[in-house]
Amino acid sequence: MTRPISLLFASALLLTGSMGGATAADEPIQPIPPAKITNAAQVELGKKLYFDPRLSKSGFISCNSCHNLSMGGTDNLQTSIGDHWQQGPINAPTVLNSKMNLAQFWDGRAKDLKAQAGGPIANPGEMAFTHALAIEVLESIPAYVAEFEKAFGSAGVDIDRVTTAIAAFEDTLVTPNSRFDKWLGGDRAALSAVEAKGYALFKDSGCVACHNGPAVGGASFQKMGVVEAYKTDSKAIGLAGVTGKDADRLNFKVPTLRNVEMTYPYFHDGAYWTLTEVVDLMGKLQLGKTFSADENAAIVAFLKTLTGEQPKFELPVLPPSTDKTPRPKPFG
Amino acid sequence: MTRPISLLFASALLLTGSMGGATAADEPIQPIPPAKITNAAQVELGKKLYFDPRLSKSGFISCNSCHNLSMGGTDNLQTSIGDHWQQGPINAPTVLNSKMNLAQFWDGRAKDLKAQAGGPIANPGEMAFTHALAIEVLESIPAYVAEFEKAFGSAGVDIDRVTTAIAAFEDTLVTPNSRFDKWLGGDRAALSAVEAKGYALFKDSGCVACHNGPAVGGASFQKMGVVEAYKTDSKAIGLAGVTGKDADRLNFKVPTLRNVEMTYPYFHDGAYWTLTEVVDLMGKLQLGKTFSADENAAIVAFLKTLTGEQPKFELPVLPPSTDKTPRPKPFG
Repeated sequence: MTRPISLLFASALLLTGSMGGATAADEPIQPIPPAKITNAAQVELGKKLYFDPRLSKSGFISCNSCHNLSMGGTDNLQTSIGDHWQQGPINAPTVLNSKMNLAQFWDGRAKDLKAQAGGPIANPGEMAFTHALAIEVLESIPAYVAEFEKAFGSAGVDIDRVTTAIAAFEDTLVTPNSRFDKWLGGDRAALSAVEAKGYALFKDSGCVACHNGPAVGGASFQKMGVVEAYKTDSKAIGLAGVTGKDADRLNFKVPTLRNVEMTYPYFHDGAYWTLTEVVDLMGKLQLGKTFSADENAAIVAFLKTLTGEQPKFELPVLPPSTDKTPRPKPFG
Repeated sequence: MTRPISLLFASALLLTGSMGGATAADEPIQPIPPAKITNAAQVELGKKLYFDPRLSKSGFISCNSCHNLSMGGTDNLQTSIGDHWQQGPINAPTVLNSKMNLAQFWDGRAKDLKAQAGGPIANPGEMAFTHALAIEVLESIPAYVAEFEKAFGSAGVDIDRVTTAIAAFEDTLVTPNSRFDKWLGGDRAALSAVEAKGYALFKDSGCVACHNGPAVGGASFQKMGVVEAYKTDSKAIGLAGVTGKDADRLNFKVPTLRNVEMTYPYFHDGAYWTLTEVVDLMGKLQLGKTFSADENAAIVAFLKTLTGEQPKFELPVLPPSTDKTPRPKPFG
């Protein structure tokens, strides 16, 4: 574990409740910038599509079902519920700040949010639809057809535009102004002494080797179980499934810790529900460290300061189906 | 069919595109008044509870799952999907303007929204939870505990308060300012000639005998299949299940026609998806009338003017569970 001297210096100062001359730029965690909206019409369209269960075979499951924006962009379930109540193979990662991930899904098999967005629609275990049928539904609804034209500057509804619009909406789902970001910005009162101590421990213990950057994660793939193997019933093999390399076995995208208080349960298998357990396990499995109860509590207290402002928007009203819209098949 | 002379007079005038000296007060349909909020804290709490899937055993189903406020307060499915993807026995009625109903559920078995709200939570085929477990979940979340205290003026979380808060939120779910209401208010240009003709037909044909008042329904129980029997696979028997009287067999609460363009599919069994079919069937089964294609189209055009302003509010952000919160059991 190598880290710049300046960080060690800064963290030592933090223990005394002061950053001295250090600035946010010296920290391994950077603030979340607010959303920048370049195409408001695409964002609005994407928001509707994100909430529209008609993109599923059943007419019951939308993007928001498993990446629920009332609940930290997750479903807060160990693994998700798909069409006909199928049990998903992996924990649903949060959509919040997901544009900062180096790739999407736990195994990184989608290079970006646009590439990700088409996956669940056509996955037989999730929304169980087809792209062709989803487009047929949207094309039967004049209000949607008009919105696509407005958002893209020309007529036409296709899966490329659907996923572009959903990704444009998801790009706006950032959570700035957490207490930690205020502290990074120079507001010394934003963290308590225990929280600041937790951050210092988070840095000094090496957590920041993987959990760094604005998203406090999402920037690399890492082996789950470095020092000690992780015990799990999950069959997920991580990056190896994408690269075909045995060396990538159990390498998973490092999850963001932004809003981690809201994104339980944890790990790719969703097997742990409390931050106390997770901090303990990460110390042992990844770093070979055993945190004392006080240290653990301080790190947990720090992690809870990463909860930012949740995206604020009006619940979208979806344009109704028409006589020509193919009907959902929830029980077929 | 008896109706006041003044209405016949008004509808005759409507055919010429003018109400002359008649006023909205003479019409069998009245405008929807805007929502009045008396306890904003209760409404805000109720909104969160309405969107909270932790009131279900699975942690996946909320009030909004089947009464989706993005989709006219319904799920737009023939019958709803319950815990473990169970198929519901009846079409989910809209929550919009439901406070105007003389009773709740198709068979009226709940006297008001508060009495209704507890039903689905504990119904094994719907949210499959118990009231006691739902309260245990809420009590484990300090932010909820504080909100209950604020909303009710004293500490305590119980099912009576949960359903009171949900009903307070639902009371706000009204849809004023439809084009038809603007027309009722004197804006003659709000309806096209065909739409006005459709309204005249709706009155002259006797539809208003049941579909009247601000909600254009919801004010009485009526036999489904008066002139001719309604053919259905549904086993629902309606009001008879509540009163035990054979005379009430197949008597259902007349559904509101407000926002009917958004609340497909139709009837208690959700068997019909288009307003064209429904107008045709209602004419034949309830009134012994066969509408011409033009008449049918005019009535459908009128019905679509009943779509009002949908409730506008920010998607609520739910307080996260804690280490003490009982965990959902989606697959147990």
